Amino acid sequence: MPDSLPPDSVGLVQPQTLHFPEPLTLACGQALPNYDLVVETYGELNADASNAVLICHALSGHHHAAGFHSMDERKPGWWDSCIGPGKPIDTNHFFVVSLNNLGGCHGSTGPASINPDSGRAYGPDFPVVTVKDWVESQARLADRLGIQQWAAVVGGSLGGMQALQWSLSFPERIRHAVVIASTPRLTAQNIAFNEVARKAITSDPDFHDGRYCEHDAVPRRGLMLARMVGHITYLSDASMGEKFGRELREEAYKFGYDAEFQVESYLRYQGERFSETFDANTYLLMTRALDYFDPAFEYGNDLAKALTQARCEFLVLSFSTDWRFTPARSEELVKAMIAARRKVSYAEIDAPWGHDAFLIPTPRYMDTFTAYMSRVAREVNA
Amino acid sequence: MPDSLPPDSVGLVQPQTLHFPEPLTLACGQALPNYDLVVETYGELNADASNAVLICHALSGHHHAAGFHSMDERKPGWWDSCIGPGKPIDTNHFFVVSLNNLGGCHGSTGPASINPDSGRAYGPDFPVVTVKDWVESQARLADRLGIQQWAAVVGGSLGGMQALQWSLSFPERIRHAVVIASTPRLTAQNIAFNEVARKAITSDPDFHDGRYCEHDAVPRRGLMLARMVGHITYLSDASMGEKFGRELREEAYKFGYDAEFQVESYLRYQGERFSETFDANTYLLMTRALDYFDPAFEYGNDLAKALTQARCEFLVLSFSTDWRFTPARSEELVKAMIAARRKVSYAEIDAPWGHDAFLIPTPRYMDTFTAYMSRVAREVNA
Repeated sequence: MPDSLPPDSVGLVQPQTLHFPEPLTLACGQALPNYDLVVETYGELNADASNAVLICHALSGHHHAAGFHSMDERKPGWWDSCIGPGKPIDTNHFFVVSLNNLGGCHGSTGPASINPDSGRAYGPDFPVVTVKDWVESQARLADRLGIQQWAAVVGGSLGGMQALQWSLSFPERIRHAVVIASTPRLTAQNIAFNEVARKAITSDPDFHDGRYCEHDAVPRRGLMLARMVGHITYLSDASMGEKFGRELREEAYKFGYDAEFQVESYLRYQGERFSETFDANTYLLMTRALDYFDPAFEYGNDLAKALTQARCEFLVLSFSTDWRFTPARSEELVKAMIAARRKVSYAEIDAPWGHDAFLIPTPRYMDTFTAYMSRVAREVNA
Repeated sequence: MPDSLPPDSVGLVQPQTLHFPEPLTLACGQALPNYDLVVETYGELNADASNAVLICHALSGHHHAAGFHSMDERKPGWWDSCIGPGKPIDTNHFFVVSLNNLGGCHGSTGPASINPDSGRAYGPDFPVVTVKDWVESQARLADRLGIQQWAAVVGGSLGGMQALQWSLSFPERIRHAVVIASTPRLTAQNIAFNEVARKAITSDPDFHDGRYCEHDAVPRRGLMLARMVGHITYLSDASMGEKFGRELREEAYKFGYDAEFQVESYLRYQGERFSETFDANTYLLMTRALDYFDPAFEYGNDLAKALTQARCEFLVLSFSTDWRFTPARSEELVKAMIAARRKVSYAEIDAPWGHDAFLIPTPRYMDTFTAYMSRVAREVNA
């Protein structure tokens, strides 16, 4: 809890819920008859609505990206390090929009919402939502907010996929796409980790085929395992080593199976905390959105061909020790952008923190990100 | 099932069970009052018992390393590619001993065995067994077989740890240690993956605190998840990519959570098969043996100091795409051996198969392994 708000914070913020009464047809063929999106905004929209930046969240993210909901809040939004006055996404210049995606569990319509057709929670009947669907829903959000064209769409990991998809789905409505710690599509290994997480959830007896709410149950064990395995892939071997090494919680081996290495209790704690707050059906949905994302697929697996649709400029950032979405995956994307003759800036940031590095404000990352976004801001003001 | 046995096979083999009536005090302080070890041997022990090679198995391995138990057996032993006439561990020259370790679930005394103190299965009361304990039990096995000194002790992964421990526990009883795809100790990330596997098992409601046998239950879901996550770490991103890519089982996305990518159904199949055959308490025990192995620990984390005890020569082999136990970990071991002025040969084998490469007979691997073992054989015959 901050005693006072830091000067570079966007300060106290409040989410708002926007209702969209029009049906949205999804890639799977199903339609949502109507839906809500929970949104936060930071900074002021300028007169010609040319300074808007959209933040897209990753697997377990949500709309609360910056600032504090109250003076009692222990931690600010999940990307507070990058959004605020004087920060890379500078709220002195930009109007920043951050939402909880469809299918989420932080207030936007998702599996825990009431299905108007049945009068009970969607649960497993909530349709699978894709990155493309999210971008469609975000375009409607832009319409609602009076934003014809984003100055930039920005995201890390699954968020970066949305930024990339924006450049393809609505090439005229985006001037810059910032794709951080992301990939043009998952590898078999990435899908395999997602599958372990899903199997952990769906095989938990408390999952009840996705109808756990109706059974007053929560598949906590499954969610915990899903988060534990996910968490390992977010950190690097080196950063885990630096953070925990082989440190024991007590002096000597206890010759049992309780958590006795620091890394064990850390993972259990992370898993338990997550299992108390995150919705299991949403976890399935988010991992499937990751699996399915593959913009090259419709173009004979030719990513460059897909990218010829794009009109925006790109910033692509990767992190040296990210083994979930390695720098090689970003380079693949950059090469396709160059082959498609798009304008792209690329940097591999040397950072020990693995995939999570996109959340950690290391100097070179902040400098590179700030330099690029300053240019975006200058274009707005010009 | 082979129609006829291949000429380079050790042929039909039969395991035997050896009973050890003397108590064995373990590192944890507990003692096993007596125990059985299941053993297979291939080749002939020579007159002065100088041609014996011990094979140590990895996490899910067992005594059946080579040959066939019957003409109906679909596949030979797990390391048949490396053991047999004309193979790296050439049974024309060597007498090969392969056992199921204590705590295993393939016939040697383990958690599923009857505890003589209680008259019921040990289950969770089976003591945690360490690599050091295994080597003690293997030394007694050598005594029983009339082997004063091994020509070589050989193992991959957890098996390599046993070969290394032999050089430290019984320096005078081993002439060569062959340490393949192994590590002098686990990293935090390695322990973290083990912890996910253990948590998957212990949180399965069918685990019953390890007394699942008494409940006529098997923690299948937990074992399946443990194997799935383990399996990902045995393969490389590249080899999974080559094997499965993003191939779908059907033509198009099904927009659901059933297995639809090939890699998903492969992992599920592997997990299911494993959960039908492997004992959950043994899985816990084997992963803990991995976690605890750390020969440098008693020497102020100075691995070279630990290795000054060793008298044997070493062959250390690593595989380029092994991210479970990377070549860097083998190099760490080799450097310490050099610092301790031990004789060591080292090769990093270029192979795309990740950690599993130690089971796959790629030419450079076979050539290097064969060259070294030929030298060991020449010393025997000299």
